[in-house]
Amino acid sequence: MTKPSSFQEIILKLQDFWASHGCLITQPYYTQVGAGTMNPATFLRVLGPEPWNVAYVEPSVRPDDGRYGENPNRFQLHTQFQVILKPDPGNPQELYLESLKALGIDPRQHDIRFVEDNWEQPAISAWGLGWEVWLDGQEITQFTYFQQMGGVALDPVSVEITYGLERILIALNNAKAIWNEEYGAGVTYGEIRRQEEFEHSKYYFETADIERVRAMYDLFSAEADACLAQNLIVPAHDYVLRCSHMFNILDTRGAVSVAERQAFFRRIRELAKGVAVAYGEQRKGLEYPLLKESQKSKVKGQNLPATFDLRPSTFLLEIGVEELPANDVDSAYATISTRVPTLLDELRLAHGDIRLFTTPRRIVVSIDSLAPNQPDREDLVKGPPADKAFDKDGKPTQAALGFAKKNNLDPATLEAREIDGGKYVAAVVKQKGRPTPEVLAEALPKLVADIKFEKSMRWNDSGVAFSRPIRWYVALLGDTVIPFEYAGVMSGNVSRGLRPYGSPEIKIASADKYFETIREAGILLDKEERKASIVEQVNQAAALLGGEAIFGYVGATRESPLLDEVTNLIEMPTAVMGGFNPEFLALPRDVLISVMKKHQRYFPVQSKVESQKSDEASTFDLRPSTLLPHFIAIRNGDDIHIDTVREGNEHVLGARFADANFFVREDVKLKLEEYRPKLSTLTFHTKLGSMLDKSDRILKLGAEVGAMLGFKGIDEIKPLGRAVYLAKADLVTQMVTEMTSLQGIIGGEYALRSGESAEVAKAISEQYQTVPQSKVGVALALADRIDSLVGLFGAGLAPTGAKDPFGLRRAAIGVVQPLIEHGMDFDLALAVQKSAKTQPLEVTADVQKQILEFIAGRLKVVLGDMGFKHDVIEAVLAAQSNNPAGTVRALNQLSAWVGREDWSSILDGFARCVRILRSQTVDSGQWTVDESKFVDAEEKALFKAVQDTVHGQPSTVNEFLEIVTKLVPSITAFFDKVLVMAEDAKVKENRLGLLQKIASLANGIADLSKLEGF
Amino acid sequence: MTKPSSFQEIILKLQDFWASHGCLITQPYYTQVGAGTMNPATFLRVLGPEPWNVAYVEPSVRPDDGRYGENPNRFQLHTQFQVILKPDPGNPQELYLESLKALGIDPRQHDIRFVEDNWEQPAISAWGLGWEVWLDGQEITQFTYFQQMGGVALDPVSVEITYGLERILIALNNAKAIWNEEYGAGVTYGEIRRQEEFEHSKYYFETADIERVRAMYDLFSAEADACLAQNLIVPAHDYVLRCSHMFNILDTRGAVSVAERQAFFRRIRELAKGVAVAYGEQRKGLEYPLLKESQKSKVKGQNLPATFDLRPSTFLLEIGVEELPANDVDSAYATISTRVPTLLDELRLAHGDIRLFTTPRRIVVSIDSLAPNQPDREDLVKGPPADKAFDKDGKPTQAALGFAKKNNLDPATLEAREIDGGKYVAAVVKQKGRPTPEVLAEALPKLVADIKFEKSMRWNDSGVAFSRPIRWYVALLGDTVIPFEYAGVMSGNVSRGLRPYGSPEIKIASADKYFETIREAGILLDKEERKASIVEQVNQAAALLGGEAIFGYVGATRESPLLDEVTNLIEMPTAVMGGFNPEFLALPRDVLISVMKKHQRYFPVQSKVESQKSDEASTFDLRPSTLLPHFIAIRNGDDIHIDTVREGNEHVLGARFADANFFVREDVKLKLEEYRPKLSTLTFHTKLGSMLDKSDRILKLGAEVGAMLGFKGIDEIKPLGRAVYLAKADLVTQMVTEMTSLQGIIGGEYALRSGESAEVAKAISEQYQTVPQSKVGVALALADRIDSLVGLFGAGLAPTGAKDPFGLRRAAIGVVQPLIEHGMDFDLALAVQKSAKTQPLEVTADVQKQILEFIAGRLKVVLGDMGFKHDVIEAVLAAQSNNPAGTVRALNQLSAWVGREDWSSILDGFARCVRILRSQTVDSGQWTVDESKFVDAEEKALFKAVQDTVHGQPSTVNEFLEIVTKLVPSITAFFDKVLVMAEDAKVKENRLGLLQKIASLANGIADLSKLEGF
Repeated sequence: MTKPSSFQEIILKLQDFWASHGCLITQPYYTQVGAGTMNPATFLRVLGPEPWNVAYVEPSVRPDDGRYGENPNRFQLHTQFQVILKPDPGNPQELYLESLKALGIDPRQHDIRFVEDNWEQPAISAWGLGWEVWLDGQEITQFTYFQQMGGVALDPVSVEITYGLERILIALNNAKAIWNEEYGAGVTYGEIRRQEEFEHSKYYFETADIERVRAMYDLFSAEADACLAQNLIVPAHDYVLRCSHMFNILDTRGAVSVAERQAFFRRIRELAKGVAVAYGEQRKGLEYPLLKESQKSKVKGQNLPATFDLRPSTFLLEIGVEELPANDVDSAYATISTRVPTLLDELRLAHGDIRLFTTPRRIVVSIDSLAPNQPDREDLVKGPPADKAFDKDGKPTQAALGFAKKNNLDPATLEAREIDGGKYVAAVVKQKGRPTPEVLAEALPKLVADIKFEKSMRWNDSGVAFSRPIRWYVALLGDTVIPFEYAGVMSGNVSRGLRPYGSPEIKIASADKYFETIREAGILLDKEERKASIVEQVNQAAALLGGEAIFGYVGATRESPLLDEVTNLIEMPTAVMGGFNPEFLALPRDVLISVMKKHQRYFPVQSKVESQKSDEASTFDLRPSTLLPHFIAIRNGDDIHIDTVREGNEHVLGARFADANFFVREDVKLKLEEYRPKLSTLTFHTKLGSMLDKSDRILKLGAEVGAMLGFKGIDEIKPLGRAVYLAKADLVTQMVTEMTSLQGIIGGEYALRSGESAEVAKAISEQYQTVPQSKVGVALALADRIDSLVGLFGAGLAPTGAKDPFGLRRAAIGVVQPLIEHGMDFDLALAVQKSAKTQPLEVTADVQKQILEFIAGRLKVVLGDMGFKHDVIEAVLAAQSNNPAGTVRALNQLSAWVGREDWSSILDGFARCVRILRSQTVDSGQWTVDESKFVDAEEKALFKAVQDTVHGQPSTVNEFLEIVTKLVPSITAFFDKVLVMAEDAKVKENRLGLLQKIASLANGIADLSKLEGF
Repeated sequence: MTKPSSFQEIILKLQDFWASHGCLITQPYYTQVGAGTMNPATFLRVLGPEPWNVAYVEPSVRPDDGRYGENPNRFQLHTQFQVILKPDPGNPQELYLESLKALGIDPRQHDIRFVEDNWEQPAISAWGLGWEVWLDGQEITQFTYFQQMGGVALDPVSVEITYGLERILIALNNAKAIWNEEYGAGVTYGEIRRQEEFEHSKYYFETADIERVRAMYDLFSAEADACLAQNLIVPAHDYVLRCSHMFNILDTRGAVSVAERQAFFRRIRELAKGVAVAYGEQRKGLEYPLLKESQKSKVKGQNLPATFDLRPSTFLLEIGVEELPANDVDSAYATISTRVPTLLDELRLAHGDIRLFTTPRRIVVSIDSLAPNQPDREDLVKGPPADKAFDKDGKPTQAALGFAKKNNLDPATLEAREIDGGKYVAAVVKQKGRPTPEVLAEALPKLVADIKFEKSMRWNDSGVAFSRPIRWYVALLGDTVIPFEYAGVMSGNVSRGLRPYGSPEIKIASADKYFETIREAGILLDKEERKASIVEQVNQAAALLGGEAIFGYVGATRESPLLDEVTNLIEMPTAVMGGFNPEFLALPRDVLISVMKKHQRYFPVQSKVESQKSDEASTFDLRPSTLLPHFIAIRNGDDIHIDTVREGNEHVLGARFADANFFVREDVKLKLEEYRPKLSTLTFHTKLGSMLDKSDRILKLGAEVGAMLGFKGIDEIKPLGRAVYLAKADLVTQMVTEMTSLQGIIGGEYALRSGESAEVAKAISEQYQTVPQSKVGVALALADRIDSLVGLFGAGLAPTGAKDPFGLRRAAIGVVQPLIEHGMDFDLALAVQKSAKTQPLEVTADVQKQILEFIAGRLKVVLGDMGFKHDVIEAVLAAQSNNPAGTVRALNQLSAWVGREDWSSILDGFARCVRILRSQTVDSGQWTVDESKFVDAEEKALFKAVQDTVHGQPSTVNEFLEIVTKLVPSITAFFDKVLVMAEDAKVKENRLGLLQKIASLANGIADLSKLEGF
């Protein structure tokens, strides 16, 4: 195993490796392709039932990745090594890892990770699931189980392994950049490719003639159609590829509007589908020449032993899988948490503790003291009614005979019983409890099948779908294997160890030994344990660096999505510290953090000073960044050769930062303002126009919102106007195009660099935060979000069920939350009405009402999250919801009242007034109070009390309830002595009128009837 | 050395081989190319001074080679393996042969030949010299020393080795066709490529949309310009390649006229040059990063020995070369034949016999008894004139002193001598004869340099040009090496053996042993010996096959160009008999023969019956072919594994015949007549219109020519009209496009298959023969050739000097020769005049005269070749040349007269009459004969004799000379007695008038004054 050090040696080694593993070695395609997937050796050959194993180099051209030869590992042309294995050989990951060994990459000396990747290529109607394979943080391979290609579902599924050869060379040579590494024969990669890289970057970004390229596209597209009409599949495919390349050039030249983009995609997709379907038919017509007699060796496993242990035993099920996506590790856990206990009940198996664990490689169910068998049982089975079961002679009828036969009874033994209040023939069916092994052998496949995922995939001819392929089961009751087969895999007693150790087979002697054995193998099964270990190591590492790690905790429970994800990517965490060039600290802080967290799953490190305030990563901060030029990565495995891992990760991060640097440098050639007109090329929604249209709308609405929020004077109004004007401009910058999550943040950064004021920049940067800090930011966010809500509801695009494609729930929360947190009074109804007037379509009063209700619904959720009692929320919201800040004030007050010791008497007093009114069928508006008609002293006293305390309608909960409190003695006396329902109707109505006066005090404040104890 | 049996193994082995020999291994280009040469890794990198060694696979797309997947080894896409070695490593052929060994191809088991190939790609202004490498008759590789690329002269020269991988696979597996051979991993080549081959063939030949492809070409071309303007070299080159591919598609679709073709080529060539020049500048600007310090190890050879043998010795020079083209083997022989003797004279070396030999691998000069040194000599050197050499005091002047110094003399010894009739100072310079080794060491490099070739090439940094690279010299005088260096090669005493034996080094002990040693090595140095051996073996083989070989003897000396060529391709001839599928005998006989002879250098075999009549191969014959389905090839080497060689050759021939079959089958889908309109797409000449225009012209002229040749009645006139009408139609058939040499022959064949009469078909088939057999054929040929002569002269394109680009000399011979051989009287002047009227431009009377003179010039050559005496020809031609048949009749008669014993008296008699007239200054037209003025009896007698014998002007030589014969006695008497120059002017003029009557008898018949003895 000599380590190749040149580009060509890598290629020659991979060719030899895959040739010796039964692959056909073919050549790159003769037309520019974006990826090896587009080569007919993949695109066409993965279709249909024929086996196909192939490997080839594919120089892949992606114009918009051009960096003029300046980026250390991003190029408009990179070299893929593409492998297709069809069908799945059962061990493609292991084959792949062996191929890395052939390249001299020993998994023990590196950190090799299979990181979820849901591959999708809408332009050719293709998708698959799999992973990016990371070598020390660098993506070196895409590994995909193709599910669909050209719109055609694949059967069998193909495994696609796409190596990124440049990155492998960099990794092998531990290089900073590709350029000075050897291509072969003593010539550097840079010598071979750098000048060309520069020329093509310039061509694609600057000089390609848009009109001519467009004309080429049209010609290619027409010729593709013509070829398809003649059933000339490969020529047609060639033209589709050319169309695709032309589109890429146009796109890189910035010549494709969003609306056009869809049309291009649709067109190319149609053509690709046409090619795929025609190819399928052609192969069928040829009777699939490569299809050999299926040697489907139906795996037959062990049989159950003849005798079973009669004592309760530990049961252990381990489902061994290829690396699950982080979310699926959790969802599998959730499923077995609910499913396993109920299953045991259904199976009538007594058991002790259940322990459940999930990691990226395994799903584990452990059950203590599982009964050796089901208990016997007797079931009473209800038969026909007694009167229909026996004839006049008392002999069983046909119905009774049938029932007896069905239940395997002697008809003579049938007798009638009282069941459910009627008389029926019944049978007592005795069922012998079955041995647990038997029961499990039947039940376990179903248990596995019950574990469902949001996205699942097929991989072999079992047709089973799972998150990722299942490769083994350990199923042990004590030391007995419970034999079953599911998804083409047989159960046994062999597990596999850590991926970095080569996933060695590990024999599990018995269920009881499982945890010990697995721990010895270095695997931490328990997610919480893994997480704790990570936190501890990261904190230690950060301390060594003199800083503090940014975990990015969010929400009240301070969960860290990053930590959660990282925990689910490994089975044995080891922290790796790394650094980057401090010059990159000049990049926007959020760019740095975003790259580290989102792209690389690293924990950033910042100096402790700032960290005392907050460890929130995404707060825009105008002070110099206090990030440190360091990061902490988590390796899967131990600390052998950890320097290699560190250097690899450092290289990757450096390259990514260099890329960001490229974008920023390109972007700041224009002022932010100059990007705004280009918003016309981005469609917001076809019914609502472009992003420029939206931007113009929120400019109008922003002024109204400002006024409603009390913005006054040029000092307040001007920054708002400027912020709203520039708010969306960053959407057409390269940096945001590349990292959408940085929208707003980049806008703010560029605003500053364009000479805008700090206030304007801050507002722009905050606009996508749920609660902007600045008043201007709030006003901007409100205008933006209300415009979206009103416009999209008006266009008939309100969320339905779980679907919320435009994120309107989030928008509504983003309307109420800032108002609440900033305590800003605001009339949502008015704002919606103003916004409706700016929309390019009519938004009716009805729709406006729906919008307000929708916002109120979100408000309720927010209030619940704030800890208000449900009934209190209901009480207030029933009366007021269009001013969230006011709602919260009311809630605070009401909550205080509800907490008073005398609350029940106050509530009771008020409630007595309200309740008696409810029983009246007549509308309350008809009652008037006529002092002269009062009869009893107590009612006169109450009337007086009301007159003394009530001076107009109260405006707050406190005012209202203070009045009520004062009235309570009089109310109590009134109800004790006075019969409201007097026979004299006038007297009665006068009394009701008095009570109604009291009840109406709550109007517009709260509906106390919603409260507990009312 | 395991033999790969699959396509991919061949590739992997070649990659490994060349990688281990210091080559960079790169990838096929991402754009369709016609050859690996177009990949920038060749096209650009061969430019400039930097070293470059690279190897890569290149699927090469040539639309017009598409055969719908039906041909066993011709495809629109074939796979090249391209190697570039820059500079020449000195042993590229040996490296190449080693690479074949790595593929399991042992040169001892095959016939591997380096067959001259002058590679030229005008579309990219590139050329080089080298070979096709043949493996058992199959071209498997092109081997070229690039001399120029993109219009730029290359320094250093690059060696290009281009393997044809499909053919190598076929050869390795001894397969009939590629389709069922393994591509790799158990999958056949056919499975991978055949369907696609069909689809692309159909696309290129039938469905590609001409207008769209043309539009693509225009866009690509414009974009190429734009890229060049921006100095974006690779993008520009990509577009040039696309232009080229589009052109190929258009061409395959038959959409390119000849005139357009030139424009396309010009345009692409300009672009390619632009790319090449820009690249050269770019590299220069980068200061040639790949250029390392030249390790030019100046080869230093042995010194001359201190003492020399004093006896005469044998001298031997062998110049060892890579395989010379067959013609160059002969031209080198011719050069040394004249140069060596004169050189020895110049060197003043006495010598015995000179023996000279040339083979493809060596040029040999052997000199017996070469003197050990030059004789001493004294030379008298002439100095300044005596009167300028000494001053008045008799002392030497400056001039004399200078002369003395220059000649190394004591000025005191200077004295004057009589030289050339004047007095000069002179010096006697004594020169000691130098030893022969010294003399040779100086002279031999010049001798080698004196061997010039029609086309020569450079290969290393010596800058020397030769036919092919020189790789060794043996230079021995006795057993002493004569040391010299030329073209970077040092002389020595080591020769190399036969190519098939691996060119082993052979030490030559002494010049005397050379011939014996070389013969022991199996090499036949003597061309005549090789030729005789071939003839003997071929005849034996043909006899075994029951037939007779077709050597294709031509001309009076019955030379066989094929035999000559084959003799110069080998050093050890061994005949190989092979066969082909008899079904192919249904192809036109000339197609079969042409393929065997021209393409494969095989000797065809025919049954003896026919061969008794003629062994001329190219005679069109309407009877069933009597060719036998066999051939005889000549292998270079012995008969080891000769079956392999035979099978390989059989495969190749089968494939070639299949290809011809394809063309014929495609062609006969239309009738011949239907091709005629397509002649409009072929330009004859821009000033003279298309081939259709020409065809229309000769249709008119044909009628006139027929009339002039006396065609009468519908039976004669109709076939002529039809033949002329159809004559050129075959030029647009695929078969003729493919094998231009079969023009006419194919037309005749297709005419028959289209239902034309045998007479018409025969005429069409014969039209390009110098002398058609049939009268219709002659008329057609005359019309065609006269049209060409008249039109092209009219367009100002008469041949100048050696240049005759339109073959007008041949056309003129083709006018006179048939007329002569068929004895047809014909008025050339009239024909030229008629033709002039049909031309689209004016052909003046002057030009017509030039044309007739030009034809007469050719006629003279033809007549000379017929054996007529020069003076006789001159005599007749001076009087008549516009009717070649008549001229020949006159010549025959005159020759007979000249041969008579009494000829001198006849001639003398007539000459006396003529001569005396010549001395007169007065024009003869002024003299009238007045019988009354005769004075003497003898003049009266002569006058009477004239009156008796002359009855009008004689029309033949015989008539004329019979008259003269009768007059001779009277003439003699006249001159004996009569003084013509009488003082009486009237008497004198009367006498002159009488003689003039006699002299004028020769008018229009012959000018006897041109005859010897006149």
